[in-house]
Amino acid sequence: MEITITKTTNPKKKPDKNNLVFGTVFTDHMFIMDYEEKRGWYNPRIVPYGPLQLEPACMVFHYAQETFEGLKAYKTKEGKIQLFRIQDNMKRLNQSNERLCIPKIDVDLAVEAIKTLVKVDQDWIPKMEGTSLYIRPFVIGTDNKIGVRPSSTYKFMVILSPVGSYYKEGIRPTKIYVEDKYVRAVPGGVGYAKTGGNYAASLKAQKEAKEKGYSEVLWLDGQQRKYVEEVGTSNAFFIVDGVAYTSPLQGSILAGITRNTTITLLKEMGIQVREERFTVDQLFQWHEEGKLEEAFATGTAAVISPIGQLGWKDKVAIINNFEIGKISQKIYDSITGIQNGTLEDKYHWITQLS
Amino acid sequence: MEITITKTTNPKKKPDKNNLVFGTVFTDHMFIMDYEEKRGWYNPRIVPYGPLQLEPACMVFHYAQETFEGLKAYKTKEGKIQLFRIQDNMKRLNQSNERLCIPKIDVDLAVEAIKTLVKVDQDWIPKMEGTSLYIRPFVIGTDNKIGVRPSSTYKFMVILSPVGSYYKEGIRPTKIYVEDKYVRAVPGGVGYAKTGGNYAASLKAQKEAKEKGYSEVLWLDGQQRKYVEEVGTSNAFFIVDGVAYTSPLQGSILAGITRNTTITLLKEMGIQVREERFTVDQLFQWHEEGKLEEAFATGTAAVISPIGQLGWKDKVAIINNFEIGKISQKIYDSITGIQNGTLEDKYHWITQLS
Repeated sequence: MEITITKTTNPKKKPDKNNLVFGTVFTDHMFIMDYEEKRGWYNPRIVPYGPLQLEPACMVFHYAQETFEGLKAYKTKEGKIQLFRIQDNMKRLNQSNERLCIPKIDVDLAVEAIKTLVKVDQDWIPKMEGTSLYIRPFVIGTDNKIGVRPSSTYKFMVILSPVGSYYKEGIRPTKIYVEDKYVRAVPGGVGYAKTGGNYAASLKAQKEAKEKGYSEVLWLDGQQRKYVEEVGTSNAFFIVDGVAYTSPLQGSILAGITRNTTITLLKEMGIQVREERFTVDQLFQWHEEGKLEEAFATGTAAVISPIGQLGWKDKVAIINNFEIGKISQKIYDSITGIQNGTLEDKYHWITQLS
Repeated sequence: MEITITKTTNPKKKPDKNNLVFGTVFTDHMFIMDYEEKRGWYNPRIVPYGPLQLEPACMVFHYAQETFEGLKAYKTKEGKIQLFRIQDNMKRLNQSNERLCIPKIDVDLAVEAIKTLVKVDQDWIPKMEGTSLYIRPFVIGTDNKIGVRPSSTYKFMVILSPVGSYYKEGIRPTKIYVEDKYVRAVPGGVGYAKTGGNYAASLKAQKEAKEKGYSEVLWLDGQQRKYVEEVGTSNAFFIVDGVAYTSPLQGSILAGITRNTTITLLKEMGIQVREERFTVDQLFQWHEEGKLEEAFATGTAAVISPIGQLGWKDKVAIINNFEIGKISQKIYDSITGIQNGTLEDKYHWITQLS
């Protein structure tokens, strides 16, 4: 299928590059492709960014049949445009689609769509260190029917948003609250899928954590409420006595691309990685024994977000004097270096736009 | 706040009243009210039914911050219009809103909005036995921002859809499959809220049950995967040795209005109601001992949906010879009689439009 391109005749003014707030400004164009049961996916097109017209009966408003992805494009010092692990993001989109009964999307076509869109809007990619162009592919069910069933029509879209450096004032560790009231996901559910419902369900815990002075929550497993799972919308790593621990992929947590990247780089650094379950009791015991050396969350937005403090009921654990640890810093430098083209791309994670 | 009314200048042709399919045709008008953090809810209005214009960055497409309700308006033989337990539906909407970090809506205003809208479109209410006008209030988060946080703007809307008799060819029992792979909800999650994510998460189980020849699934609890919870999107009742069993409201199941109505009417009939947990093993044991006399699901769409067969792994339980039971029939007749005005409204469940 050929992607048609209709360029805007009315380009927007670009935002102040020193004041880019995540996910609030969008570029001049977007990608759309439609799906009907009999035709499959059709009419892939790049058009000016603008509103969708959807009936109030549209299924996505009622039953949240929706999936999404998040990745970034970077501009190197030489002016080349790089995408990071785009194939992996598009494969994961299809894993989410499969769980949500959404028809799969050809990965090569999705990659081509994103590459073409980024090229059309390449002037929007910020150049300063730490900045990037955030790419948001998403799918919504669009039947105008309110019976509960999978939609027979869909839209796959991609929008772009220039984002500033996550760490303008240097990397700052965060305070994380161990959530013991709300649950994010459970095996057999949709926890491993990037689908709206997971995020809607997490809002209240996040809000209450903020009211307590924390920036995010550490989710425990939904069955026994004791095993460590994720931090907010990120995966979590803990360096204990030189060994890295992270929750295994057992259906309730997201298979983070940055998680996988981090595991690969930790192993390259000679650090043992244990993808196995551990309890929050164990975590605090490690801290009490002085073994919890570093902790960090991994995700596309911040890459590495060091955890400086964990709160759990009446306990507080300060990690590494509330400073970023050596391993956390090294992983951050390695990933961002590969992303912005200053370090070698040994693992073929980069797709360059020609 | 006064509700403004803008009537359509282009009324639609009404659908064939003998072929009304649930939730596919919508009336001439809809209700909308907006929310902004500083203003609260504002501009309640009835306008011609038509598409919404929403940016692709609109939060509802990405993070499913959305809630809804479902209820019905009925026309009595005397031509009066009746709403069933509307106050309870609007209170439950606020319970869902609270869980999803959506600002509460004044119940009286919501009731007034629905009454006014139904009146404007009263010619759309079908008159034949078993028919009704389905009312779908819903709320969506509308910020054009893709950071994960509660939206600061919302739309509360109500749309209407004329629906035919659920049981045109008489009440037919259904085949229900005991779901042992997928999980709908878990305590601490959003199972008790009417929010899109619950329905999105349920689609795959429903689809696979249909492929096995069943019409819906019986959900087990998400923690131990053994306690009976709900049937599809309905609550479930089991008559065992003359006693009615239904799952208690413990956060993972929806507090169904029809469930509550059924409990009230069962008690009026002198039938003991036990809202307590029981396992699927127990359920099949009751069946083997010949004690499982009737089973049915309760919900707004079908009111009472008798369960004629339960499938669980390699076991099959046929209930009451695959016929509707006496108690199920009596509850169905009582509820529909109150709804359509042929039975006395002892419990003040009815709101009549003047």
